[in-house]
Amino acid sequence: MIVYKIIDSVMKYRFGNPVSTDAVVFKGNEINKEKLQYFTVENQQFLKLKYKMHKNDIVLGLGENLKGINKRGGVFESYCSDDADHTPDKKSLYGAHNFLVINGVEKFGIFIDYPGRVLFDIGFTHKDELEITINDKNLDIYIINGKSLRDIINRFLKIIGKSYVPPKWAFGFQQSRWSYQDAKKVEEIANNLIKNDIPCDSIYLDIDYMEDFKDFTISKKRFPNFKSFVKKMKDKGFRLIPIIDAGVKIEDDYEIYKEGIENGYFCVDEEGNPFIAAVWPGKVHFPDFLNKEARRWFGLKYKKLIDLGIDGFWNDMNEPAIFYTERGLKEAVDLAKESKNKNLNIHSFFNLKDSFENLSNNTEDYKSFYHNIDGELVNHDRVHNLYGYNMTRAAAEGFKEIEPNKRFLIFSRASYIGMHRYGGIWTGDNHSWWEHILLNIKMMPSLNMCGFLYSGADTGGFSSDANAELIIRWTQFSLFTPLFRNHSAMGTRNQEPYAFDTESTDTLRNTIRLRYSLIPYIYSEYMKAVKNHDIYFAPLSFEYDDKYSRYVEDQLLVGDSLMVTPIYKENAIGRYIWMPEEMLLWKASDYNYRDYDVINKGHQYIDININEIPIFIRKNKILVLGSHANNIEKLDNTQLNVIAFVDNKATYTYYDDDGITYDFDKGIYSEIVIDIEKIDDDYRININNKGNKHVKKLNFEIIDLRGNIIKKSLIINRVEKGDIK
Amino acid sequence: MIVYKIIDSVMKYRFGNPVSTDAVVFKGNEINKEKLQYFTVENQQFLKLKYKMHKNDIVLGLGENLKGINKRGGVFESYCSDDADHTPDKKSLYGAHNFLVINGVEKFGIFIDYPGRVLFDIGFTHKDELEITINDKNLDIYIINGKSLRDIINRFLKIIGKSYVPPKWAFGFQQSRWSYQDAKKVEEIANNLIKNDIPCDSIYLDIDYMEDFKDFTISKKRFPNFKSFVKKMKDKGFRLIPIIDAGVKIEDDYEIYKEGIENGYFCVDEEGNPFIAAVWPGKVHFPDFLNKEARRWFGLKYKKLIDLGIDGFWNDMNEPAIFYTERGLKEAVDLAKESKNKNLNIHSFFNLKDSFENLSNNTEDYKSFYHNIDGELVNHDRVHNLYGYNMTRAAAEGFKEIEPNKRFLIFSRASYIGMHRYGGIWTGDNHSWWEHILLNIKMMPSLNMCGFLYSGADTGGFSSDANAELIIRWTQFSLFTPLFRNHSAMGTRNQEPYAFDTESTDTLRNTIRLRYSLIPYIYSEYMKAVKNHDIYFAPLSFEYDDKYSRYVEDQLLVGDSLMVTPIYKENAIGRYIWMPEEMLLWKASDYNYRDYDVINKGHQYIDININEIPIFIRKNKILVLGSHANNIEKLDNTQLNVIAFVDNKATYTYYDDDGITYDFDKGIYSEIVIDIEKIDDDYRININNKGNKHVKKLNFEIIDLRGNIIKKSLIINRVEKGDIK
Repeated sequence: MIVYKIIDSVMKYRFGNPVSTDAVVFKGNEINKEKLQYFTVENQQFLKLKYKMHKNDIVLGLGENLKGINKRGGVFESYCSDDADHTPDKKSLYGAHNFLVINGVEKFGIFIDYPGRVLFDIGFTHKDELEITINDKNLDIYIINGKSLRDIINRFLKIIGKSYVPPKWAFGFQQSRWSYQDAKKVEEIANNLIKNDIPCDSIYLDIDYMEDFKDFTISKKRFPNFKSFVKKMKDKGFRLIPIIDAGVKIEDDYEIYKEGIENGYFCVDEEGNPFIAAVWPGKVHFPDFLNKEARRWFGLKYKKLIDLGIDGFWNDMNEPAIFYTERGLKEAVDLAKESKNKNLNIHSFFNLKDSFENLSNNTEDYKSFYHNIDGELVNHDRVHNLYGYNMTRAAAEGFKEIEPNKRFLIFSRASYIGMHRYGGIWTGDNHSWWEHILLNIKMMPSLNMCGFLYSGADTGGFSSDANAELIIRWTQFSLFTPLFRNHSAMGTRNQEPYAFDTESTDTLRNTIRLRYSLIPYIYSEYMKAVKNHDIYFAPLSFEYDDKYSRYVEDQLLVGDSLMVTPIYKENAIGRYIWMPEEMLLWKASDYNYRDYDVINKGHQYIDININEIPIFIRKNKILVLGSHANNIEKLDNTQLNVIAFVDNKATYTYYDDDGITYDFDKGIYSEIVIDIEKIDDDYRININNKGNKHVKKLNFEIIDLRGNIIKKSLIINRVEKGDIK
Repeated sequence: MIVYKIIDSVMKYRFGNPVSTDAVVFKGNEINKEKLQYFTVENQQFLKLKYKMHKNDIVLGLGENLKGINKRGGVFESYCSDDADHTPDKKSLYGAHNFLVINGVEKFGIFIDYPGRVLFDIGFTHKDELEITINDKNLDIYIINGKSLRDIINRFLKIIGKSYVPPKWAFGFQQSRWSYQDAKKVEEIANNLIKNDIPCDSIYLDIDYMEDFKDFTISKKRFPNFKSFVKKMKDKGFRLIPIIDAGVKIEDDYEIYKEGIENGYFCVDEEGNPFIAAVWPGKVHFPDFLNKEARRWFGLKYKKLIDLGIDGFWNDMNEPAIFYTERGLKEAVDLAKESKNKNLNIHSFFNLKDSFENLSNNTEDYKSFYHNIDGELVNHDRVHNLYGYNMTRAAAEGFKEIEPNKRFLIFSRASYIGMHRYGGIWTGDNHSWWEHILLNIKMMPSLNMCGFLYSGADTGGFSSDANAELIIRWTQFSLFTPLFRNHSAMGTRNQEPYAFDTESTDTLRNTIRLRYSLIPYIYSEYMKAVKNHDIYFAPLSFEYDDKYSRYVEDQLLVGDSLMVTPIYKENAIGRYIWMPEEMLLWKASDYNYRDYDVINKGHQYIDININEIPIFIRKNKILVLGSHANNIEKLDNTQLNVIAFVDNKATYTYYDDDGITYDFDKGIYSEIVIDIEKIDDDYRININNKGNKHVKKLNFEIIDLRGNIIKKSLIINRVEKGDIK
């Protein structure tokens, strides 16, 4: 074992000779140290780490996974999985995010930088034991120390590098379905959104836009004049976001296939031939995204669609999902043939049924192909979790080459820590279940801690049928998630915001308008999180260390100023809330209509109507609010509303930039720093305008602990820095 | 349509010429009436009923089904289904319980007495519309009016006839697993329970006790001396409860098969040959339980096991579950053969996979066999929901003939209203998911409303692996359910009460002892519910009509005196509770250690440790508590503890009987009526001893609204009726 000091309070422990994941961007310096901090290590066939948890320790992290914000009691496996049943007994979803934070008698973070199978038993087998089993003896382990959870997270986010930043329009509402199958249908959706006056920035193209599910092709039949159609939709206010799949169809005349074969860009089987799996189009090869040249080749292919006017993509099926392989299918079919006319009993019948059931995403298949990593052949199983990551990296590196200073929307299904620098993720094929709203709530801060800021769930649920109430309640939460997309599967009930009754459409319109009015805050908080190696969604325990806050699983802090308490139960007329301190409650039904209640510290119940979204402004914190438009580019935030809940003083930094380039990286962005100080019964407001030319006026509503409101307006251009009484 | 008045406030509307279900035991008198009350009727291809719900109406009922106590927002289908994934999108489980209660602007019950497919859309498609679609035009509809929910339920439970009563020992804790596969394993379980001092009344035998899964056989290899083994176990304090399956193995020398064939007792296919399906043993025939003679024949077969000392059974796979039929298997295998070496794409691949996936419980199969009902051949699909019902009726009618005055334990997986007179049910193959504790909580009152009092879930979950905390929390709820059984599936982690750490075993021992100490209350409340056409578990809305009570989904009234508020969330340190009035809280960790808090009306949060069970005694209500023993027969309740929370006065009727015969039906049982009246700062206690000879002493703890406790003891034999100050 070699030990490195990466940055202050962060150590790396290197075991054996690991494959490089590029998850961490700092190299660090080798130091003299021998023992892994906190854990006992068993170095037998596999590496096993053990930590004795104390009774009240909680464990955070693991990104995209099941169960709670507090992972204690569960068992989890990092192995990117295309499993569309996110039931509570599952151990893996699409992402592999091996970062945990222990918040207890001891406070620290641990990152297992190993891209194969890792098992986390967090007090499941033995209630006080955290046991991590790594399927290998070559890996890096990082231990992150810090005085507070925030401290630990800041350090971890620093070493893994800054988050991906999408274009600002990607913070708008987005409408999707598998599939809006042709231009006519897409236009119908756009027109319905316009007719119902529902703001929206983009419409998604799922697999049916392609010709026979071939990447970077367009079905001529369904989208006869794609380029002009893209323009027409953009003129109406909608960007089209096509899907790209991992598997490349095996078809003689198909350019991508031919080039891949010619250049040896596909993963290979034991014999060195391109590995064959089957997905949507039938048999495919998998581009070897772990091979630098193959990655570059595939990444530049996005140009085909960019040239047609496309500004954003989603990368799918990149665990990689496998429906079947020839090996598996042959075995199953042979077993079926043998079974013909037999009297199958419990054993032989389930054996047969399982042979078909287990065709997809079979471990044997994952063990039977190889990557070319810097000239070395590496078995897929050992680097499985890097595949989707590097597909998205291919896209991002491609974009950088194609249009270096343009931000593209890109997000992925599969991921590994490190991919957060290249794109976002969505949380995969959930269901229209109330339980999955709660899962969505719990997953967001966990994802943020692992670097994934641009993320969100399929609002309303992908599989199963939704009713109006579920869509409303889910949308009321998703409006706070950076990726805000309504998406559903083929064969399910339509669930667009206008698909139900008029009253529900009205509620959803107001909900989505609220999102647009919150863009000044959401974008500021997102960009500051990126800049400061911070998170956007946090569990209460990040700010409050009382007895109850650490166990709260259904309330989140959003950015610096807000706490949200979504409704995720059917027929609910309100909910219970733990108030770690007094806050200002705005039950938002229409962003233009604001009234406030001061809610006291303690356990509280609040009534919430179906059209209301409870937004809590924390004590001595400030919310900035604009107004809505039908898409992000049309937002006119020359005036902003500033809502402040002030006991003594509060400060807020409003951030903005051009929204489309990487100029912010060179320091080209604006800030308005707002300071409010209570003096007797009035407030002193101090505005520090750092480069802002867009916002002309701030309208203040300042509320004190007794609920008294004072309103003021301030012209910004004229008072670049000044005290107002 | 012919209309009958069944009893006061209950009408039957007969459409066409329905198959008799024997769900309702009253015939009623034909009256002159034309219109179905409350509903509009569309009589097209199917019968469709519509009711316009008001905004705040809630809808209760549907027995064994998914979603909430309040069914509004959901869509449900009555079609007994062997589906082991009780996920929120499922429409059917094992039972078909077509009874709903609307609690809103109008209050009434509706029972759709039709044993085929019925669809209930309760505001799912249109949020204000209740729509019931019946797959036929021959059926009875009952409308039950009443002034209160209790009133409606009492009338409904009256017309469907009194509930099954199990022997008293069936209220003990029961231990099960698929499978304790041989005598050695069963004895090991018994010894472990004894060694760990965990009370238990019975151990279950799942399918492996049989010879090749043949009903009414015993594996000679695994249970070589069954009769003496049964006795040995009974001497240790455990009854053995074998499973009986619906399908009868096709095997030339097997007696049941031969007799069934000879007498034409099996369901037949289109050609009139015995219908062939496949289940555990491979190919089977289904006894035609809807044929009276076949039912009697099968029912008397239970004598084979009764003669070996068996006192209880569980009837399984009686939806009936079908793994496959020859038709289905042939089609799937043929498709597989055609697929060999083909390049299957999305369509052809899922077509193939689904053909195996859909082999089991396929609608085509259910449509392809027939019953002989009083000489008439009836397609199974039309009477599907009567099958499990009549299997259990077969058993119960058999018992009556075999030992007329002995109560047997019998419960079923599939059921229909009416079956509640013959046996109980368990709620089938759930999972070790926290969500399924909550589902269990919600299902219990719904089942009670449909007549099923003797019921309970697989405590700890059947499928998936459980951890200690889940088993503890689930057991803490199940201790209140009449059927109290820990059951799990093959291949899952062991989950017996002693299977975890010592501390967890201690907690579970105390939890199960609490159950035994509560037997005087639980048995009294169960038997009074039977006698009075009442329910044992009730939603809060049955007693409290405030705004919040009607929406409470995770608190239940248990009998007349208690409210329970189970913990069903992992890592919880307490929970929120709606208190519709002040109540007395006992956080029970050890039934011998009692202290109390008066909890005020309103929304409350209470801290609850892992070893604590919150039990609320309602205002002016009384709990009677005995002490534990290692099984029910060993209980020595010559002294009872009476805990009373008294504002002004309270009354309680303690019930008891011999626990093993039906003599209670002839009025042979005892009661002790306890009246407590507050007079100034003291209490007047009045005891009316009606035939009790067993209880000698009552120890009172009477608590007032300020939490003051007065303790008194009363010798019963000497004061049959008297006032004590």
